[in-house]
Amino acid sequence: MSRQNTPSLVVMKSTLSRLPLYYGYIDRLQAAGVEAVSSAMLAQHLNLNPVLVRKDLAQVSSVAGHPRTGFEVNQLLDDIGNYMGYNKMDEAILVGVGSMGRILLTNSKFEKFGLNIVVGFDKDPYLCGIQLGGKHILPMEKMESLVQRMGIRIGIITVPDDQAQEVCDQMVRCGIKAIWNFAFVPLKVPEDVLVKNENLPSSLAVLAHKLAMKSAVPSKINEITEN
Amino acid sequence: MSRQNTPSLVVMKSTLSRLPLYYGYIDRLQAAGVEAVSSAMLAQHLNLNPVLVRKDLAQVSSVAGHPRTGFEVNQLLDDIGNYMGYNKMDEAILVGVGSMGRILLTNSKFEKFGLNIVVGFDKDPYLCGIQLGGKHILPMEKMESLVQRMGIRIGIITVPDDQAQEVCDQMVRCGIKAIWNFAFVPLKVPEDVLVKNENLPSSLAVLAHKLAMKSAVPSKINEITEN
Repeated sequence: MSRQNTPSLVVMKSTLSRLPLYYGYIDRLQAAGVEAVSSAMLAQHLNLNPVLVRKDLAQVSSVAGHPRTGFEVNQLLDDIGNYMGYNKMDEAILVGVGSMGRILLTNSKFEKFGLNIVVGFDKDPYLCGIQLGGKHILPMEKMESLVQRMGIRIGIITVPDDQAQEVCDQMVRCGIKAIWNFAFVPLKVPEDVLVKNENLPSSLAVLAHKLAMKSAVPSKINEITEN
Repeated sequence: MSRQNTPSLVVMKSTLSRLPLYYGYIDRLQAAGVEAVSSAMLAQHLNLNPVLVRKDLAQVSSVAGHPRTGFEVNQLLDDIGNYMGYNKMDEAILVGVGSMGRILLTNSKFEKFGLNIVVGFDKDPYLCGIQLGGKHILPMEKMESLVQRMGIRIGIITVPDDQAQEVCDQMVRCGIKAIWNFAFVPLKVPEDVLVKNENLPSSLAVLAHKLAMKSAVPSKINEITEN
């Protein structure tokens, strides 16, 4: 019988970022009929440090892995899913049905990871009334009543940079408590509202600088902090 | 006269992620004719800790800020631009001209941040030969000769998940040394190749988990490691 384990409530952001990767891979193993997976196997396939993988899984799994065979696939998938809340769907609204908004609205992958974007808003009257990926596009005036009626707490901003703060303010007034921001501007929000910025220029900066550093001083590359 | 400062070669990844934000804001100040900016002003506008901003700028600026007036806008913009290499353009290829590929190809913002995506590749013969945002779309067979002739070192992967590793292998064979990966799969690369993953489900996981934690144990929210 397996030793019981108590999942940890407080977790590193870097662990959180890896859990969806484990989940995606273990989900494919389950679909392929594989019954057990070791942390070493996960580490090898996902190109990660085995010690890191073991620590990550210990934080979220309810049962310790067997020293030789590892974790039962079904159990581990359930544990990560429960921990991440993939089983109880979070609902979100999206504002700004441009090219990035359309990608997010029509990407069914997010539902697997516990996010249901229920509706898109746009100020363009020609977009309002249509459906994309089965999701209705509504005019901005409908935001408040819909968010409050459905108790939605997550808002996604995919408008041009110069409209992002205004949309953010409107979301906050409606009661949104977490904002996923794809505009390249910092948002001012009250203390009780969370923001996750998706900044492509910042990601690019990290990659390009590492590459430049590597060419300049190969021995120093490992000094760039990884997290 | 200002005290001379020596920019640091080794820098935290979190600093690197913020530098494009400073750059974007200071660039707007310059366009508006503003001549000096203090770290306190940057901190307030960008919603960051003033101590953090001061430390970040000390790492990259050639001249220490004046205690009262702060930094000269032109100088600071030059310093960040030089540090980040925005003045000498990096060239990149992109593979996979789907919805995400098109956003990246046609987004002129990247050029401001030192990245010129010179060409897109796709295996769909109907896309090959057309232009998007002034960039040619070429068939995959042309990748090797173009990368080698132009000495390109950065590759962007925007193909479906199940094709990402194959495209990655091809890039590595062509001599690409840094990969910006938008597919939600880990890539296996030789040790001398850098990868930056752009994982939307991972970003989402961080946001959704923080929100859940906040509802569950408001006092614990600050314990999630920020970097």
